[in-house]
Amino acid sequence: MPTPAEPTRDSIISRVVRILSCFDRSTAALSLSSLARRSGLPLTTAHRLCEELLRHGLLERDAAGDLRPGLRIWELGSRASHALTLSEACRPYMEDLQDTVRQHVTLAVMDRGSALYVERLSAPESPLDAAHIAQRMPLHASSSGLVLLAFSDPSVRAGALAGPLEKVTPATVTDPEQLRRHLADIRQRGFAAPPGVGRAEWIGVAVPVFGPGQSAHGPCIAAALNCILPLDAADLVPRVVPALTTAARGMSRALRG
Amino acid sequence: MPTPAEPTRDSIISRVVRILSCFDRSTAALSLSSLARRSGLPLTTAHRLCEELLRHGLLERDAAGDLRPGLRIWELGSRASHALTLSEACRPYMEDLQDTVRQHVTLAVMDRGSALYVERLSAPESPLDAAHIAQRMPLHASSSGLVLLAFSDPSVRAGALAGPLEKVTPATVTDPEQLRRHLADIRQRGFAAPPGVGRAEWIGVAVPVFGPGQSAHGPCIAAALNCILPLDAADLVPRVVPALTTAARGMSRALRG
Repeated sequence: MPTPAEPTRDSIISRVVRILSCFDRSTAALSLSSLARRSGLPLTTAHRLCEELLRHGLLERDAAGDLRPGLRIWELGSRASHALTLSEACRPYMEDLQDTVRQHVTLAVMDRGSALYVERLSAPESPLDAAHIAQRMPLHASSSGLVLLAFSDPSVRAGALAGPLEKVTPATVTDPEQLRRHLADIRQRGFAAPPGVGRAEWIGVAVPVFGPGQSAHGPCIAAALNCILPLDAADLVPRVVPALTTAARGMSRALRG
Repeated sequence: MPTPAEPTRDSIISRVVRILSCFDRSTAALSLSSLARRSGLPLTTAHRLCEELLRHGLLERDAAGDLRPGLRIWELGSRASHALTLSEACRPYMEDLQDTVRQHVTLAVMDRGSALYVERLSAPESPLDAAHIAQRMPLHASSSGLVLLAFSDPSVRAGALAGPLEKVTPATVTDPEQLRRHLADIRQRGFAAPPGVGRAEWIGVAVPVFGPGQSAHGPCIAAALNCILPLDAADLVPRVVPALTTAARGMSRALRG
């Protein structure tokens, strides 16, 4: 928490984060007034901060004069990024997997209470517009998140089960006790394939990728590898799981070596 | 420039950028004291700022307790990133190209006076450790930069030629007049293949990728597509250029469509 002696310092970083958080895949550029409104900042404050962010290249202007995140913030975020290291190591295995399954293939990590997609190979023929790179899904409402939870340390799992559990679709499990049993089942089977828990029409199939670390509870999970099928192709799950598991083992070996 | 009325606001964003700029591929994590030293900030200032950045997830601690860029900054930089949109559109063509040439294949854009690599497909058998994603090279000292300069608007070119031109290797051309002729030649031939201008032992081969925009001087260049060969394989250049040109045409069409 900010100490009383430095309210300005804290609030500026918070405000910058609020400004940068306004952009996403469907909102790649905004006018200054829209950006002020979305970030909840007074126009004059937003203007001053944006001018400073423009000077540093953290924002840039597009051809229409609107503001968008600058290449400099992508650069600062990517240059030493754990996400990039992970996706570089895992991408060859994801390519092999996608050649086999011909559906969107994603890689997600647990970050700040959600599943964050760090890599994705898209299937051009799939109409699903979700699980894009740098997007997030709730842990309890995605196959990747459920795998990340199932194989994480018990304390992490307990924390997530104690938090608010949003009902994203009618199929999302939000009862902590039921979720706990579901996670135990995923741990035992080695994969999650919950139908329609994050997007009603789709079924994610996910398996764990383990990193080099070891905890008291076994190898540390580094990521979840996932493939997304239309709900009416759920009969493919038994065929997709072995391909996912094989690719995930290659990734785990690559991360350890 | 900061106005006298708001020195604190300006200096905090500058300091955050200084902190985040300390990390790169070879320095993925730093202790607080190393980070303070590298960023030139007093230890107490660095400590306060890092605590705030940790709270926002812009920094995180690794297993050893050192600081590293957080997934949140990667997320904020990637979610609406021009770099990511570009690399998503271009990656299939880069994969086709790499299947053919079996060398590092990169995609770079011009940003703030340098060539910034936004995508790279690595050739596992190539020992060259350069041109990584989110790294930069001087425009005049890389095949990608020379192509970006050659096909940019004359005003951009004039600005770059007027600036300081560092002699990166003995082969780097730093005489503005000689560079101007070199760029005219690249424009005419449609590719750059300058031996050893950025790394003495390597030859980059680069071609332009055009975006949807049009300027008074022709289609706007969006990126440079590049392939990196060992200097002793320079005789392959005539065979690599057609493959690069073909892939770049596909990318240009994808970016326009």
